Amino acid sequence: MGEPAGIGGELTLKVFARRKELGLPPFFTIDDPNRLEKLAEQIGVSAPLTAIDHPKEALKRFSDALPIIPFPLAAPVEPGVPNSRNAPAVLKSIELAVKFAKTGQAAAVVTNPIHKQVLNEAGFPYPGHTEYLAALAEIETPPVMMLACDELRVVPVTIHVSLAEAIKTLTSEDIIERAIITAEALRQDFGIPHPRLAVAGLNPHAGEGGQMGREDQEIVAPAIDALKEKGIDAFGPLPADTMFHAEARATYDAAICMYHDQGLIPIKTLAFDKGVNVTLGLPFIRTSPDHGTAFNLAGTGAAKESSLVAAIRMAAEMAASR
Amino acid sequence: MGEPAGIGGELTLKVFARRKELGLPPFFTIDDPNRLEKLAEQIGVSAPLTAIDHPKEALKRFSDALPIIPFPLAAPVEPGVPNSRNAPAVLKSIELAVKFAKTGQAAAVVTNPIHKQVLNEAGFPYPGHTEYLAALAEIETPPVMMLACDELRVVPVTIHVSLAEAIKTLTSEDIIERAIITAEALRQDFGIPHPRLAVAGLNPHAGEGGQMGREDQEIVAPAIDALKEKGIDAFGPLPADTMFHAEARATYDAAICMYHDQGLIPIKTLAFDKGVNVTLGLPFIRTSPDHGTAFNLAGTGAAKESSLVAAIRMAAEMAASR
Repeated sequence: MGEPAGIGGELTLKVFARRKELGLPPFFTIDDPNRLEKLAEQIGVSAPLTAIDHPKEALKRFSDALPIIPFPLAAPVEPGVPNSRNAPAVLKSIELAVKFAKTGQAAAVVTNPIHKQVLNEAGFPYPGHTEYLAALAEIETPPVMMLACDELRVVPVTIHVSLAEAIKTLTSEDIIERAIITAEALRQDFGIPHPRLAVAGLNPHAGEGGQMGREDQEIVAPAIDALKEKGIDAFGPLPADTMFHAEARATYDAAICMYHDQGLIPIKTLAFDKGVNVTLGLPFIRTSPDHGTAFNLAGTGAAKESSLVAAIRMAAEMAASR
Repeated sequence: MGEPAGIGGELTLKVFARRKELGLPPFFTIDDPNRLEKLAEQIGVSAPLTAIDHPKEALKRFSDALPIIPFPLAAPVEPGVPNSRNAPAVLKSIELAVKFAKTGQAAAVVTNPIHKQVLNEAGFPYPGHTEYLAALAEIETPPVMMLACDELRVVPVTIHVSLAEAIKTLTSEDIIERAIITAEALRQDFGIPHPRLAVAGLNPHAGEGGQMGREDQEIVAPAIDALKEKGIDAFGPLPADTMFHAEARATYDAAICMYHDQGLIPIKTLAFDKGVNVTLGLPFIRTSPDHGTAFNLAGTGAAKESSLVAAIRMAAEMAASR
């Protein structure tokens, strides 16, 4: 479901309507049938719903209608205006999706964007989706965020902190931990037996031998050495500006980046509408579109469904590989 | 000439050989004729030379041979191995080019890459080409580095310093100064009467209202306000990751970036072989290919001339506009 006041519902409907043209694998949604029916009419998308009790029913119903596990909302949905009365249902829909994935009833979880603030106001103690999934999965090592498109996969080591804080908190240990989880996921979920990891330097020109910062020699390079000792094909630190053109991208399977924009600038430059957010290190497969709730577009039908299409496709491919 | 042990000479020869196919404007080179003749033979490029005394002779000779102002080197050139005995000639060739441009005998200066270390060893006191050109031009405000390709123009406010130093030294004044010079150059040299400048935020999501660093509110935003007051169409601070896809690029003429990789990652991702380095704020036009001396390729003929071609083209377009 995701945040019902956001664009998630209409994206689900639009993707379903194009399922045959796009050759998509069967999926079901956990949502409020009344609000989705109203929304389909409002945006003029033909997507009949069919209520199901169990995920397995989705397989035979998917060709004719969008299978839906009914999950009524407490308050009417006004597109663009999140309502904290609906926050418990948003969270419970995630819990139910995780339960289905953990028990093998669903091959993967694809989440629509949530709105953190309204959930936090309703008592949700997590900074975001990913941390909540990690708590539900009861894992000890924090999961890893990977952004992926056809052209590139990137894993930022530090994420939602200021750039100064990213530099201050960057450690060899974190680089190693994220790289190990990434390599394991590339093997298990992406069918790459010997994953190659390109590790970006923190500084311009990867510090140019220490002339522009010493972090690349003191933090990044030792992490790469440690990864090599563990048998992981990691190399770098590479100058980040020359890592992302087509010829360079052909030399690796994922780029380990030191901070948010170092990884997100190239992937959003290459594939703005088709990026997928993949959470690695969970005991189940989880993808999501690489955008937010877009309240300004909610209810208009104008939001592009390409990223959700890519997220569903990638989840299915990962499930097949696993 | 640039560094004679680097790839500059062979690029000049290759570009000259393709001048008709590419429809290039006439140019001449300042170099050692003996070493260029040897080099042409070595890499198998047909580029007869014709010695000239004055730039104006280049116009009538260019269709048949590469016009060259002879500038003999002190020591034989060994490709890949810079020799400090040739450093004075490298510097004097730059001085002569600047003299021609300042006096209107040449429309622009296009420089091949130099090797700073060997020049520094020979007593050259500048950190690079650009600072030397500023000294020769006797200007007070430091010139501005712009990287440009067909898809994008970027101007980094901080350049060759560590990322931590870039954050520490970033000021509103520097952003304003670089943006003013950029806007003026876009008007004068690029034929854009009302340039639009997109200003990147420093932090992820441009700080998200101060939740991820306060620099965007305290340093970047006030600079944008000051630019607007001066009648410059600047806007931001923008989240850097969503600034560089095609739809976003259509909304501005240049991106003002806070640090080296923020600007260089997107441009080298989009146009690795065709980027041009343009120096703004000099009293003459100067461009250069966006790569180094590539000693590992020197003498083999393998280096791609596409960036030098783009640099020559852009210099001619800028001269026509000015």
